[in-house]
Amino acid sequence: MPEFRKDPVIGRWVIIAKERAKRPTDFVRQPAPERTGMCPFCPGNEDKTPKEVLAYRESGKPPNSKGWWLRVVPNKYPALRVEDDLHRSGDGMYDIMQGTGAHEVIIESPEHGASFAMYDQRQTEEILWAYRDRAVELKKDARFRYMLLFKNHGPQAGASLDHPHSQLIAMPIVPKRVKEELDGAERYFRFKERCVFCDILRQDLLSMDRVIDENEEFIAIAPFASRFPFETWVLPKKHEAHFDKIEKHQIVLLAQMMRTILGKMHRVLDDPPYNFMIHTAPTTEGPLVHYHWHIEIIPKLTHTAGFEWGTGFYVNPTPPEQAAYYLREETTEAAGTEEPSPSNIVTLTA
Amino acid sequence: MPEFRKDPVIGRWVIIAKERAKRPTDFVRQPAPERTGMCPFCPGNEDKTPKEVLAYRESGKPPNSKGWWLRVVPNKYPALRVEDDLHRSGDGMYDIMQGTGAHEVIIESPEHGASFAMYDQRQTEEILWAYRDRAVELKKDARFRYMLLFKNHGPQAGASLDHPHSQLIAMPIVPKRVKEELDGAERYFRFKERCVFCDILRQDLLSMDRVIDENEEFIAIAPFASRFPFETWVLPKKHEAHFDKIEKHQIVLLAQMMRTILGKMHRVLDDPPYNFMIHTAPTTEGPLVHYHWHIEIIPKLTHTAGFEWGTGFYVNPTPPEQAAYYLREETTEAAGTEEPSPSNIVTLTA
Repeated sequence: MPEFRKDPVIGRWVIIAKERAKRPTDFVRQPAPERTGMCPFCPGNEDKTPKEVLAYRESGKPPNSKGWWLRVVPNKYPALRVEDDLHRSGDGMYDIMQGTGAHEVIIESPEHGASFAMYDQRQTEEILWAYRDRAVELKKDARFRYMLLFKNHGPQAGASLDHPHSQLIAMPIVPKRVKEELDGAERYFRFKERCVFCDILRQDLLSMDRVIDENEEFIAIAPFASRFPFETWVLPKKHEAHFDKIEKHQIVLLAQMMRTILGKMHRVLDDPPYNFMIHTAPTTEGPLVHYHWHIEIIPKLTHTAGFEWGTGFYVNPTPPEQAAYYLREETTEAAGTEEPSPSNIVTLTA
Repeated sequence: MPEFRKDPVIGRWVIIAKERAKRPTDFVRQPAPERTGMCPFCPGNEDKTPKEVLAYRESGKPPNSKGWWLRVVPNKYPALRVEDDLHRSGDGMYDIMQGTGAHEVIIESPEHGASFAMYDQRQTEEILWAYRDRAVELKKDARFRYMLLFKNHGPQAGASLDHPHSQLIAMPIVPKRVKEELDGAERYFRFKERCVFCDILRQDLLSMDRVIDENEEFIAIAPFASRFPFETWVLPKKHEAHFDKIEKHQIVLLAQMMRTILGKMHRVLDDPPYNFMIHTAPTTEGPLVHYHWHIEIIPKLTHTAGFEWGTGFYVNPTPPEQAAYYLREETTEAAGTEEPSPSNIVTLTA
């Protein structure tokens, strides 16, 4: 059983995955070797995964057999596991909680060598429908308070299997990182009576310096305080706190946007490893005026170093205005002019 | 000039390093190629770095010439830069602050191919003296409120030059990550009237499950809520908030401990990339009853993935009790018995 442990100083929860405990020799530092052998996510190997919880397949075919173009299964090695309650315990001064939750894998395609950046419009829409369907389904389970949909692409971004897949984790607690975002957005709303994400949209559409692409329903920006080179956020233009409230015409346009952005990253950054995460409101919340769901995409181009660990400050060597320029124009050449400078600078001396 | 930018949602400051702005082609994803050519940290190249601020060298030799066995210079490409004041400015809804601070490099040895895990006792002590000397000196500068000493070993841990070196950054603000640690420790003290780190020492010495090594003055543990496999903390046994208050006999024993731990990691984990950071109290604070300086060592064995970015929960696949066992015994074989189980478990059902 995985175990949550609480750091007695900071109060940060860590998940200790006891069941697949890794030994020193399990940490391979070389680039991942060619992976051969059986892939549990390939068609024909349906019996190598836990039984599917959702699949889109040719009609008439039985569950857990070939003929699907998208399949969702519980993770065989879950970071969290569904149990009836949270067991809390103490070990002297230390606090432990059982790792309760659901952990599912969305197998995005039957094709082993496919990748998110390369899917056609139809397949991309199907993946987004699967995200929504599972979110709607798991929301009915009253034990869960938060749900994270995410994807790791490439071993350097933490993908342990090559076959393209996304993941969903549902948890009985709202994680600290999410709480901070919600609290920050609420603070902003109390001060301005406007959603901070709607304001970001408005300001970035005004200057266009950080806009990578937009369509009727979505915008992709390099955020002003990007932690990482080429960090990209995709935001719906219409205010909405919950991802699972997405509508059919929005799915079409979100699929277009994800294909555009991941395609641009693939071409400009040479198929980089990346993570993307769907940030959405806790499942127990109703409509929220101050929160706005969005997708954060982080290409893995730099290494976190001592300064970041020690201070929590990220050092980003690519200004987001330049990152947006490279992705927008699909070029690896710097702009001929000076670096784009933020407009309307008001200087105050502290 | 590097620039601090504040995320308008979370309030997190990010440093945008504008001067060495990296283009898409600058991100090399292959293992670092053999680095050839001139090393600015090698003896004979003293004119390739900014002028030294400290050096331990043969007596009679002039500054910025050969004959040193340790040398400290300002970073040629600083993440932060010494300026007279913090310029604060706004760009619409966004906040910007100038990247003011000092950024120095401690060149640990004249030998290009040396590494911290392999220094002799004498050289290790000299490095620790240099850390202390620079900390004492920079503390006199009233502009700084926090000072971080850290080391990146290996390109995967963010080291951009092979020649072994550590770094020091002094800042005019106390970073959020440090503030959280101080606040957590203070909260614990208010509740218990004991230092949380002293309590960790006591509890871990009682069970010994997570102790890797100890001597008269220092202890090395795999912390209870380790974020990463083989994460190790080195703590002084005597309560003290400030690293720069370290005494001569403690330097000898800390050098012994660092050689032991980094040597063990080198042997058991096959020279892993790692970061270490000295956590110490802000320079403006006097003696603190609730804070306790210590060193955190993080071997870089796993990749941060979407789940961590989305939730802030770390998933650690090596229980710290097992990590401590492997390092203590210097073995890569699992213990013959069951996994070490925490003693004195009190179970409460939430």
